Amino acid sequence: MNQTKALMAEFLGTAWLVLGGCGSAVLAAAFPNVGIGLLGVSLAFGLTVVTIAYALGPISGAHLNPAVSVGLWAAGKFPGSSLPGYIIAQVLGAIAGAGILFLVASGQDGFSLAGGFAANGYGEHSPGKYNMSAALVCEIVMTFFFLLIILGATAKRASAGFGGLAIGLGLTLIHLISIPVTNTSVNPARSTSQAIFVGDWAMGQLWLFWVAPIVGAILAGLVYKYIFREE
Amino acid sequence: MNQTKALMAEFLGTAWLVLGGCGSAVLAAAFPNVGIGLLGVSLAFGLTVVTIAYALGPISGAHLNPAVSVGLWAAGKFPGSSLPGYIIAQVLGAIAGAGILFLVASGQDGFSLAGGFAANGYGEHSPGKYNMSAALVCEIVMTFFFLLIILGATAKRASAGFGGLAIGLGLTLIHLISIPVTNTSVNPARSTSQAIFVGDWAMGQLWLFWVAPIVGAILAGLVYKYIFREE
Amino acid sequence: MNQTKALMAEFLGTAWLVLGGCGSAVLAAAFPNVGIGLLGVSLAFGLTVVTIAYALGPISGAHLNPAVSVGLWAAGKFPGSSLPGYIIAQVLGAIAGAGILFLVASGQDGFSLAGGFAANGYGEHSPGKYNMSAALVCEIVMTFFFLLIILGATAKRASAGFGGLAIGLGLTLIHLISIPVTNTSVNPARSTSQAIFVGDWAMGQLWLFWVAPIVGAILAGLVYKYIFREE
Amino acid sequence: MNQTKALMAEFLGTAWLVLGGCGSAVLAAAFPNVGIGLLGVSLAFGLTVVTIAYALGPISGAHLNPAVSVGLWAAGKFPGSSLPGYIIAQVLGAIAGAGILFLVASGQDGFSLAGGFAANGYGEHSPGKYNMSAALVCEIVMTFFFLLIILGATAKRASAGFGGLAIGLGLTLIHLISIPVTNTSVNPARSTSQAIFVGDWAMGQLWLFWVAPIVGAILAGLVYKYIFREE
Repeated sequence: MNQTKALMAEFLGTAWLVLGGCGSAVLAAAFPNVGIGLLGVSLAFGLTVVTIAYALGPISGAHLNPAVSVGLWAAGKFPGSSLPGYIIAQVLGAIAGAGILFLVASGQDGFSLAGGFAANGYGEHSPGKYNMSAALVCEIVMTFFFLLIILGATAKRASAGFGGLAIGLGLTLIHLISIPVTNTSVNPARSTSQAIFVGDWAMGQLWLFWVAPIVGAILAGLVYKYIFREE
Repeated sequence: MNQTKALMAEFLGTAWLVLGGCGSAVLAAAFPNVGIGLLGVSLAFGLTVVTIAYALGPISGAHLNPAVSVGLWAAGKFPGSSLPGYIIAQVLGAIAGAGILFLVASGQDGFSLAGGFAANGYGEHSPGKYNMSAALVCEIVMTFFFLLIILGATAKRASAGFGGLAIGLGLTLIHLISIPVTNTSVNPARSTSQAIFVGDWAMGQLWLFWVAPIVGAILAGLVYKYIFREE
Repeated sequence: MNQTKALMAEFLGTAWLVLGGCGSAVLAAAFPNVGIGLLGVSLAFGLTVVTIAYALGPISGAHLNPAVSVGLWAAGKFPGSSLPGYIIAQVLGAIAGAGILFLVASGQDGFSLAGGFAANGYGEHSPGKYNMSAALVCEIVMTFFFLLIILGATAKRASAGFGGLAIGLGLTLIHLISIPVTNTSVNPARSTSQAIFVGDWAMGQLWLFWVAPIVGAILAGLVYKYIFREE
Repeated sequence: MNQTKALMAEFLGTAWLVLGGCGSAVLAAAFPNVGIGLLGVSLAFGLTVVTIAYALGPISGAHLNPAVSVGLWAAGKFPGSSLPGYIIAQVLGAIAGAGILFLVASGQDGFSLAGGFAANGYGEHSPGKYNMSAALVCEIVMTFFFLLIILGATAKRASAGFGGLAIGLGLTLIHLISIPVTNTSVNPARSTSQAIFVGDWAMGQLWLFWVAPIVGAILAGLVYKYIFREE
């Protein structure tokens, strides 16, 4: 893969993930009477991955998420030397997506970042007031299964072509379960992009949304490598 | 492709896009207690594309949207000489779809076009009262990513057969994000078909729903052509 | 295809369509607070077709609907001699599905067929009180596009394997648009199965749900045959 | 297939089914204002199967359900000697999934197992108060069609690759119909995992959620074997 093309794909793809996933949450989730709710937001996050996987997957692999890149590296499927570039492109892309979302969202009277944008949080900043240890367990386990799905559905023995659907719909599923707990991260770039705009408590809790997804991803990478690897 | 067949496919397909997408919005979105909401409308718009892409895609490419035809032309994937015919067929098809929708919708006592049909708008005519610059940014960016998805998912290197799903679900995603902002256009034919019936403010704001989608589509066409093209 | 196997597949498949589609409407649509609404019912109808298309499609073609069989015959894709057997198997299957649904639904205190089961209707029996001509237009046009999707997505030039998804999701789309108008038929077997249980007005209005779907299906068959046929 | 790998896949996969399906029900279904409802829960259950089918299907077949293993055995598609190992792995995995869910759910003030977790039940413990015979009919018939879908969609004559989508979306469909009746089991491992945590009435009613799914699965296995088998 051409490295510049790949980084550009990760940048644009992660911008789309934030714009689509966080954007649907901020703009449409609680729209009066006909809002899309957490179900619509879950679908939106998943469809950002489905669309980019089919559109730009052949160019960069469509990771769109530092935890995904790290998990693939732990499984021996991605070179460590490419990690820094990918992660930087993902974080910058996520921030760009958040910036566009801010531009649009602030075009409505009464918009305020104090509403929390779509930042991730725990304790009093968890949508359902789940405590920190529930948040840690949840983010680790969700990312663990996310990577297991990614590694399995892109293996050589898997049905060719279906990976994008399985992985994207897997992200939808993860949101269907865990938005009430942490607003669902499993993606440090997504979390960072929102925390930067919200500042304050969101920056203070950001560490968990780097640590937990990366721990879950590495665990999955190792489990896959040592238990499920293709001979 | 046979040109008459292709124009007929664009005509019927765009009629279906308007009948399905705008139809679900007008008839079912706010049905008491069990209405489909913005989530159902988003799904409906996407499924019009999914269904026509698989049914008539091999005949015309299933653009169903002047911005799509222009974006494909900008990327060097569609002949400029076919643009006028396609765009005329799309606009006429969209109007036909709106006409059928009007026939059905007016079969309910108390129906009135003053409710806005499913017209696109900004400012006081935006569902969430978003201002004009938010609407411009939103329509440009949404159409940009829509074309990026279309160009990527139909490239030779992409997984064969999955394009219709990725593109249709991409349109669902775009609606999940942006209905509150502009009622979501990204498609000048769809906007025109509703504005003609509503007249008044909808005709006055129609320019934005031609300009913004086409600008976004051309940008995507150029980005794809110069950055992501297949060697 | 083995004829007995095919008829058995149509019987079981149509039973599943009624049990799944009408069943979700009767049992779950208006469940307090967390009901699936018209969106859930639309999805359920579509998924009955998706599942049977992949499971039994290779055996009978998975028509599950007299209008589909007639439309395919009009397009020259299904032998007229097989029509009577298919239609009888579909109607009997639909009635069997309705019978099982009745068994389950009547296991709840206070259940009554006077609630309308999931019968189709127009005028005062339309969910949104749409008049008869709106119902006629709606059922003709919806079935027209349903058959266009079926004929296109199963053509030799279409992407192999995706037909089941496109057709099933097409039925979901049709429900997203038109449940408020007629409770959505596009399928005379489905309508008959409910009318038999409800009797009264539902039997009196049943003619429309045979005539309109079959007219729409024949129109689509002819349009496809003379305009879009594969050379 | 390597037996240890397969059992590990069934264990992890069934844990994911419980965590995703029951988890979405417990954590997100009734979240104030924007909860995912029964539609979101239905989607979540289905997507656990979609994701594991593509990720681990090539390793174990992704049964994730004792009734599925038994039904495949009845159809002559799975060796009886592998049944005990599969069923034990599935039940243990389901319990592990329920344990993780308990860890997360109890991180919210006021959580109590007395709310029923996501246990299956009939009579006064049916979500819609359906009686025992309705529950029996419903679970038998739903599992019958589930196995018919599984057997058909994984047959040699079926479209390769689409099985995972058809089967997972089939489970979504089953939930769209039957959550109000029994909270939907069709899977004794899933039922057991919740009953163990809830104890009391849930253990007392657990027999039905072993008997009915297995009866339905065996019936489907025999119908498929003697009527629809590939020559």
